Parts: sequence; C-alpha cells; structure tokens
Amino acid sequence: MLIVQKFGGTSVKDAERIHNVAKIITDAYHKGNDVVAVVSAQGDTTDDLIAKAAEINEKPSNREMDMLLASGEQISASLLAMCIQKLGCPAISLTGWQAGFLTSSAHTSARIRRVTPDRIKKELDQKKIVIVCGFQGLSRYDDITTLGRGGSDTSAVAIAAAMHADLCQIFTDVEGVYTADPRKVENAKKLKEISYDEMLELATLGAQVLNNRSVEMAKKYNIELEVLSSYTNTPGTIVKEKVKMEKMLISGVAKDTDVARLSITCVPDTPGMVFKLFSKLAQRNINVDVILQSVGRGDTKDIAFTVPKDKGREAEEICRRFKENVGAEEVDYNDNVAKVSIVGAGMESHAGVAAKMFEALYEKQINIRMIATSEIKVSVIIAKDDADRAVQAIHEKFFPVER
Amino acid sequence: MLIVQKFGGTSVKDAERIHNVAKIITDAYHKGNDVVAVVSAQGDTTDDLIAKAAEINEKPSNREMDMLLASGEQISASLLAMCIQKLGCPAISLTGWQAGFLTSSAHTSARIRRVTPDRIKKELDQKKIVIVCGFQGLSRYDDITTLGRGGSDTSAVAIAAAMHADLCQIFTDVEGVYTADPRKVENAKKLKEISYDEMLELATLGAQVLNNRSVEMAKKYNIELEVLSSYTNTPGTIVKEKVKMEKMLISGVAKDTDVARLSITCVPDTPGMVFKLFSKLAQRNINVDVILQSVGRGDTKDIAFTVPKDKGREAEEICRRFKENVGAEEVDYNDNVAKVSIVGAGMESHAGVAAKMFEALYEKQINIRMIATSEIKVSVIIAKDDADRAVQAIHEKFFPVER
Repeated sequence: MLIVQKFGGTSVKDAERIHNVAKIITDAYHKGNDVVAVVSAQGDTTDDLIAKAAEINEKPSNREMDMLLASGEQISASLLAMCIQKLGCPAISLTGWQAGFLTSSAHTSARIRRVTPDRIKKELDQKKIVIVCGFQGLSRYDDITTLGRGGSDTSAVAIAAAMHADLCQIFTDVEGVYTADPRKVENAKKLKEISYDEMLELATLGAQVLNNRSVEMAKKYNIELEVLSSYTNTPGTIVKEKVKMEKMLISGVAKDTDVARLSITCVPDTPGMVFKLFSKLAQRNINVDVILQSVGRGDTKDIAFTVPKDKGREAEEICRRFKENVGAEEVDYNDNVAKVSIVGAGMESHAGVAAKMFEALYEKQINIRMIATSEIKVSVIIAKDDADRAVQAIHEKFFPVER
Repeated sequence: MLIVQKFGGTSVKDAERIHNVAKIITDAYHKGNDVVAVVSAQGDTTDDLIAKAAEINEKPSNREMDMLLASGEQISASLLAMCIQKLGCPAISLTGWQAGFLTSSAHTSARIRRVTPDRIKKELDQKKIVIVCGFQGLSRYDDITTLGRGGSDTSAVAIAAAMHADLCQIFTDVEGVYTADPRKVENAKKLKEISYDEMLELATLGAQVLNNRSVEMAKKYNIELEVLSSYTNTPGTIVKEKVKMEKMLISGVAKDTDVARLSITCVPDTPGMVFKLFSKLAQRNINVDVILQSVGRGDTKDIAFTVPKDKGREAEEICRRFKENVGAEEVDYNDNVAKVSIVGAGMESHAGVAAKMFEALYEKQINIRMIATSEIKVSVIIAKDDADRAVQAIHEKFFPVER
C-alpha cells in the first residue's frame, strides 16, 4: 500500500516531536507500506523568518519571501530524514522542486500546476522512505515558490493524487473532525467519516482542521483522507466521497468570528446595482460570504453581506463611495458578530433541520441578524458574545447528551 | 566592470550588518559596475543547524547534512536581496543550483565541477544585482551539495573565473593580509600585494584569511583577488600572480597551533617502510604535513611528522600498529606544539633568511624540535607555549619597529 502522510509544524517542532513522527512513519513502513511524508516548517520557524524579513524590509518582494520561507521545510525535512535513519530505516529528504512540484509563478500563493513524481518513485523503488518539503514548488522560471499558508496539506494531497496513493493521512494536533470544537462544546463527538462536501463547508466555516484547497483537490481526484492526531495512536476521521448516514442529520456545528458585517440601506432598485458593488469588492480581492438583499421598500432595497474581518474597513470604504455614487441612505459596519453554521449531507433529505437550529437559538433568546442556506449548510449571523452559547445550544439539540 | 564580492557569515550576522553589506554592494553598483555578491550563512547559523542535527542523530548522513546546511545561505541571500531592494536597487537571490554550480557528489566536501552562469548573466543583463548562495551546489543526481567550510570563498572565485570578472573582492573582518596576526604582533603591517604562492603558504600555515582552494583556483584562472574589511572603507590586500618586491624578504610570519607531532624511533632501515606508514595514513584521509627522517643509527632510522590535531589520536593508533608490525622501538605523541613559519617569494634569491629566523628564536632561547623548508617557506615546530613569543621575535627581526 502507498501511504502519503502529512505532518504540520507543531508535529515537528523539536527533536522530541520529530522522533515521535519518525516512529509513526517507520511503523507504517515496517508494515510493508511505501511511505511518502510531507512536512511543514518547524513550529514557529515561518513566523520567525517573516519577522527577520520585516526587520530588513517592511515590504519585501514576494519572490524573495518565497526563497526565504522555503528554507523552513528544508530544515524540518532533513532533520526528519536524519531521525528516521537513526531508527535504522533508509530515508531521503526532497525539496519541493526535487519532488517534482511545478507551480504557477504567483509567489507566496502559488498554485500547483503539475506534480512529476519521478524522483519520488525512484527513491521508493529503492525502498527508501521519502520526506518531501511541503508548501513549496518551482515556477517555470526556475524560481522557488510557496503555496501560501496551510499549503502543506495541499502538497500531500497533490502527491497522493499524482501517485494514486491508497491513503493520505493528515496528522494534526486534534484526533479528527468533531461535531463541534471539543475544547468548547461539551459532548462534542469525533466523526468516523465525513464527505468531501461537508468537510469543505466546515473548513470554510472556520473549523480549521483541513486546508480547503486540499479537500477540493482530494474530492477532484477521489483521494481518501484521514485526519488524525500525531500525539495519540487512535483512528481519526475519514474524509471521502460517500459516507454512511449513521442516522445523523448534521455532521457538525462550527463557529467563525473572523467576520465583519456590512449593510447599505435604501439602494435604488435599478438593474446592475448589486453587480456594481460586488465587482468593486472583487477587484480588491475581497471575498464576500453571506449576501442578503431585502425585498425592498418602495423603489429601494437594502443590501447586507459579510467579509473577512481584516478586509472589513476596506470594504466599508468601498461601500461609502458606492453609497455616494448611487444615492443610498446609510452604511453600517459591525465586526462584533459571528457566523454559526450547521453542516450535513443529511439535510438534503430531511425537512426541519433549519427549524431545529432556529428553535435552539430561540430557547436561548439569541437574536439572528442574517440567515444563509445552501443544500448542506445553514449559517446564521449573530452577536459575537452569543456565539459560544449558540454553538453549545445547537449541538445539544442535534446531539443530545446521553445520560 | 564586473565585480564579484564575497561576504562571510559575520558580515551578514544581523539586520544591521546586512544593511552595511547592502551599502557596499549598492555603492559598487551605482558606480556603474555589474555586481555579483556571494554570501555565507548568517553568523552562527551553520553551527546552530549542526547542533540541531546532532541532537537527533550523532552521525547524520552527509547527504542530509547538506540539505540542512544549504538552508543557511538561502536565508542570508534572500534577506540581503530584500535589503538591497529596500535601498532602491533591483536585486535577486539565487541558490547554488540556480546560479549554475555543478559539483561532485562528495557531500559536505564537494568539489566544483563546472559553473554555468547563464541565469546570473540573464539577471545582470536586466541590470539586477545578483546575490548567490555560497558554499553550495548541485550534484549530477540533482542533490544539494556543500563545498565544506570556507567554501564560499571558492564559490566567489569560481563565479569570477566562469564570468571572467575584472575583480573578486573577499570581504572579511580584517583589513587585509598582514605580516603577522595584528591582534597579537606589535607593528604587524598590512601588505599592499601578495602573490598567489605566498598566500597559499600563509593559508596553509594557519593565517586563515582566505580559504586555500579559493586561492588555488584564483591562481589557476588568474583572477585578481582583493582581501578587505566589510567594516572599514579602506583598500585591502591584492592577491595576484606577480608582485613588486618592495625590498621585503618575507611577506609574513604565521602560527598554527592545530598541530600534533608524532615520532617513531628505531624503524628498520629497509625499503618501503615510509611508504607503508604513510599509505595507511592516507587511506584514513589524514593529511601529513612536516615530515622528518633521521639519518639513522646503524640499521634503523627515526621518523617524525605532524598531522592536524583532530586526527592526532587516530594517527597515533596507526603508528602503534605499524610499530608492532615492523618491530620499531617507540611511538611518541605530542600535541602541545605549534608550527611557526615565515613565507616570502624573496627567499629564493636571498641567502640567510632561514638563519635570520633561527637567530631570532635563539635570542629568545626557544628550542626548535623540527624544521621544514620549501622554496618560499621555512617552518619550525616548537613548544606551544613559546609560539606567540616566537612570532613576535621573528617579526621584529624581519620588520624592525621604526622609532
């Protein structure tokens, strides 16, 4: 069996953790598997390097940032290979370009164009464990690129896809995907399985277990993912196309507080208004999430939407200029909000899922500001202070505590 | 004019020093020169990385060590490029393989096979300052190699040779080549010029201003070197083929305390004895320096030689086994010694240079254990405690203090 394993920065942060990861890898190897391990930079290395750069140039070129940051995985990968050799197994570390990662030339957020895993195959044929620097690749100009933060997940899935791996394990500091954040919600349950689509909704909603691009890629190439802990030796959560229903209506409740809400009232109700506003936001690379448009009063309508918090003030500026141009009434900005969502493939076939969520919020007297739904998701925008209580209440409603 | 500049680890050890180096480079650039700068890893980075590796595997593979250590220059080179960009000049950093360094695959001490500077030329044509990671290259197996310690000097000279540079400046923390160590010897003088051969003898003798391989390469391709300080703005010492004699008998006095002396007494005086001993030492990669063979007593002879101190005990073991095998009398080991040498092309045509050196030692009552001479060098092995006094005395003899 060919297994691709991915280890994040905290999993390799010091000699002790590297040794632990080496044990996981060699265990899989001793069971007769071919193993390719993808690693991120150690612990805070990336942040330290960014700080070093900032001291020298507050706006360093992206090309040079990539050159700088790519050194981080080169260090962790070679240290891990040394540790595996120490445990008596043959191992070799490969940089992104050695592993065959060809990317776009969008430095600091490059996209993988192609993985040509000839070198990886050659080393596996020689019965070596192959350690690959995640998060990085090579542009067609022979420059080192990085895939942006969280990119190591994508690196792992891309290798798994290119090599038709049997399994891609994403090791992290949680034991799998839970029905809610286990640190905050009593009785949160670990899921045995979850579908790609549900995982994508959960990732978008701030569950932050897996990088979204990696799940999209896994779905596209139908790679089975397992999310599991590098600390404990227990099975994690399998992410795949079809999952058994397990009589569960929803697979999780997620909270996202990285949200700002904007609204513009009394926008003239003429064609093209919405287009004008959102094309301006798109030009500035501002991702708009939940969008609501009121039915309207007379010949005007109200528009409200959410954006990531760090883009909030920029979006507000655009709204104010838009308001002046089209003669709307008022712009309101509020980043004291949170988005709470439920996700589940079961929703499609079961009526009343949204109602059950609203009931839970009503029982706790939590006011809903906005609602957005998709086929497998219901999101509400509420006051930030209510967010944790809301998650707890919704979770209890769908996963009653067994006593 | 095309100038290659090399900056060592202390020259780029922090943001302030990097800024200073960036100033030196941009000054040369603003004078209309094409500039290629070769950098080492920052300050103690290499030692820190070696310590990290040692914590994980006390005998890491050389291939993985190279992967690890090469990250050091990647960091310093990209930071330097960012700093130059901050000063308003276009700059780009290149790894060893991007800069076209093809090397042997002898990891941790690879030799440069070829430099193909196409990428460097392309970037220079676009009026960019090119920053190259020193000390590293690529083997024909596409693996990252390092040239071993001090290798950045060699990287700089190799680029200068491949590109027919007009000048290769080696920036360091001293202002040039001195007649003796200026921190220890009163009245030590900076040389304006020195020949390749003299420089080679001085480097071998522990003056440690320039890496030996780099001087050999400069001599081979006739590259003019300048050794100068990155701290002060003064001309350094030019190293080239022919130098003006300046009425100086010698160009310098050097001391080397990294020496162990071995002797074997009463070795049977039959053919092949010396060959047997020294081939065994060569097999173990132990470099033998000064060798003396006594005229002999009866049908035996005594053999004495020096080796680098870190190989001393290993060499002693070999000597003891050799003694048993051939039936010699005694093996003596002493690493409490130093080698003090004078170097100068002037010796060839001037008699009495060695005598003058011995006179200086006699006046200070310093006992000479061994003597070795070449055409431009006289070395003596003396007690380590006498070394500094010896250098001072010899220097005064040849360069009298002007009062």
